[in-house]
Amino acid sequence: MLHPGTKEPITESDLAPLFPAELIAQEFTKDRDVDIPGAVLDVYKQWRPAPLVRARRLEQALDTPARIYFKYEGVSPAGSHKPNTAVPQAYYNKLAGVAKLTTETGAGQWGSSLSLACSYFGLECEVFMVKISYQQKPYRRGLMQTYGATVHASPSELTQAGRDALAADPDNPGSLGLAISEAVEAAVVGGDDVKYALGSVLNHVLMHQTIIGQEARLQLELAEDYPDIVIGAAGGGSNFGGLALPFLREQLEGGRSVRAIAVEPSSCPSLTEGKYDYDFGDTAGLTPLAKMHTLGHDFRPPAIHAGGLRYHGMAPIISALKEAELLEARAVPQTACFEAGVTFARNEGIVPAPESTHAVRVAIDEALRAKEEGVSRSILFSLSGHGHFDMQAYADYFAGDLTD
Amino acid sequence: MLHPGTKEPITESDLAPLFPAELIAQEFTKDRDVDIPGAVLDVYKQWRPAPLVRARRLEQALDTPARIYFKYEGVSPAGSHKPNTAVPQAYYNKLAGVAKLTTETGAGQWGSSLSLACSYFGLECEVFMVKISYQQKPYRRGLMQTYGATVHASPSELTQAGRDALAADPDNPGSLGLAISEAVEAAVVGGDDVKYALGSVLNHVLMHQTIIGQEARLQLELAEDYPDIVIGAAGGGSNFGGLALPFLREQLEGGRSVRAIAVEPSSCPSLTEGKYDYDFGDTAGLTPLAKMHTLGHDFRPPAIHAGGLRYHGMAPIISALKEAELLEARAVPQTACFEAGVTFARNEGIVPAPESTHAVRVAIDEALRAKEEGVSRSILFSLSGHGHFDMQAYADYFAGDLTD
Repeated sequence: MLHPGTKEPITESDLAPLFPAELIAQEFTKDRDVDIPGAVLDVYKQWRPAPLVRARRLEQALDTPARIYFKYEGVSPAGSHKPNTAVPQAYYNKLAGVAKLTTETGAGQWGSSLSLACSYFGLECEVFMVKISYQQKPYRRGLMQTYGATVHASPSELTQAGRDALAADPDNPGSLGLAISEAVEAAVVGGDDVKYALGSVLNHVLMHQTIIGQEARLQLELAEDYPDIVIGAAGGGSNFGGLALPFLREQLEGGRSVRAIAVEPSSCPSLTEGKYDYDFGDTAGLTPLAKMHTLGHDFRPPAIHAGGLRYHGMAPIISALKEAELLEARAVPQTACFEAGVTFARNEGIVPAPESTHAVRVAIDEALRAKEEGVSRSILFSLSGHGHFDMQAYADYFAGDLTD
Repeated sequence: MLHPGTKEPITESDLAPLFPAELIAQEFTKDRDVDIPGAVLDVYKQWRPAPLVRARRLEQALDTPARIYFKYEGVSPAGSHKPNTAVPQAYYNKLAGVAKLTTETGAGQWGSSLSLACSYFGLECEVFMVKISYQQKPYRRGLMQTYGATVHASPSELTQAGRDALAADPDNPGSLGLAISEAVEAAVVGGDDVKYALGSVLNHVLMHQTIIGQEARLQLELAEDYPDIVIGAAGGGSNFGGLALPFLREQLEGGRSVRAIAVEPSSCPSLTEGKYDYDFGDTAGLTPLAKMHTLGHDFRPPAIHAGGLRYHGMAPIISALKEAELLEARAVPQTACFEAGVTFARNEGIVPAPESTHAVRVAIDEALRAKEEGVSRSILFSLSGHGHFDMQAYADYFAGDLTD
């Protein structure tokens, strides 16, 4: 990463205003493994290990010789995979004497997960929520409030970045990049005991999420199986990376090879169509620049329902693996994803979050391809969250109101 | 139960237009145990056994010597305990050659659970949803549609009961009792392959739900504990009965005694203030009369957020146990329940459904009483569902918009 001012490679001390030392050390570590602290495991065990499920009814409905497995992260109290990193981030901040965390959120999955984690460890939590979502998604806002967080509509009058945006356009509906600018600024000016937390993209976030793939490997061992294909939806890359990285490591260390497919919305195709270059993580240019696939930090993604996938960039680790041709990227339109989500729900009972339907779509496509080719394959995908907060999206889909 | 026309005790054949023979047999059975069919267990195992959790963080927050356990039914795909009976009901209907089930739903927990169960077994599902909820809760409606159900706002023009209600008042917002009338009529006139399904009150429904308490007993055995108090929210009585009946049976068979507390909203106090008498289950008087605690079949409960507790009657089994003084009933106002729900969420992570907050309230009250008395007690309550569909209720609570 490069410093936003000097454009020189950043050092650990450059990140000190934003993150506690332990998380910065994880961001830069070359250690093969990093232990999960007991206090984090104590929280994880409320819902982990997350279930690994063989989707037998879906297999039958598709009449496919493929074996389809999904790793279901919707059992967390926030309903998605995000607490996997929110909990250790809150823990390490608490350990460092931090009193308050600031963050941004789009649709609210990350904001509600960090609010949850802060309530576990007695930290204050201040969330800048993209204004259009703040207005349209009172449910997620209510969830964050229930966990005790303070939620602001972004752009707000509370930060220079917010005030500048409102001065230029009082009706600015907000964006994830702008909300990041506000949250970063609020942490920097907040003093030593206020830090910032990011829900994806960074190395330490992806590492926390690898518990998804590590558990899945052990669970598949019990089922005496190993995936030929692993699939995950990719917004910032932490869900996909969390599932795929443990399997890619196995492959790179001489184990079985695997096809890893990152799925993104065709309306926000950073990995399939973005430039591989240094870019800011936020709109105002306050964050370090990361080498990543990016649509440009001023890109405004269309208002698709998979809010968690509306981000201009992609995690540097995922981007580098894409460049090294160690993974595939696929972009899919949202109506095809909801169609797959409904098929999944009617067979497996669980209604996928709009983000997760992207993985379901490609898992179904690959299962149908296995059928065409008459080949039995093992397909594993991440069902990163349930859709109970997003039923309006399904209602819109049934009403024919969705466009691609 | 008495026949609605003759007022004579009903026979199994009287119920044949509504239910398949196997469920009618269960309604009348005196067998000590009824086996769960393998096909039902195959579905249950997707989320069962449901977790039994020791609420250690809540205990610490309350500084109580009590041991608090909750049985968490929100892990089902529909997010509540209702699939425990929806699945066997759909199964036995399928087995009997039934093609379609009709039912009613208030807030939508039961309707979505039956829709889910029908999608598992390839049955059509037609849901009459209380009109005011149909308009105010598009999320639940979207969930039912996702599972493939047809959802009508009740009162509708599709039944005589609905047409009569609309003729009397075109702006009738609907009620659960009226929706039951419509669903029953639709099943009766629908022919031999259309039956009706009820989500609570009846004996066979409560029996299906006893899997909650049976699992909890085995799980507490592993924890080497036994409850002194079991607590459940009671609307029609199936959630409370599902948890409490296995423990009450133990007591009646000479085992350990238990205090069983049924919690209802103070705005719909059938068990604490209702008359113990024969009454209809629905508004139009189409159902059999049951001996139960009732506020009268024309009672219109206020629009509290715990939609699942807005019913004028109470299960005959629960009512009889109340009369026999084998259980206690307690009525609590909704703001005190939401306050307890927020305390629970901030300590245990899970946001309870508005219905479930009633049990949380009394569990906290009993834990505080144990503290006052300086006595260690084991308290078990049913966390019957998560509140992810009901965050508007929490938002209203925080905005100070709730009344008791």
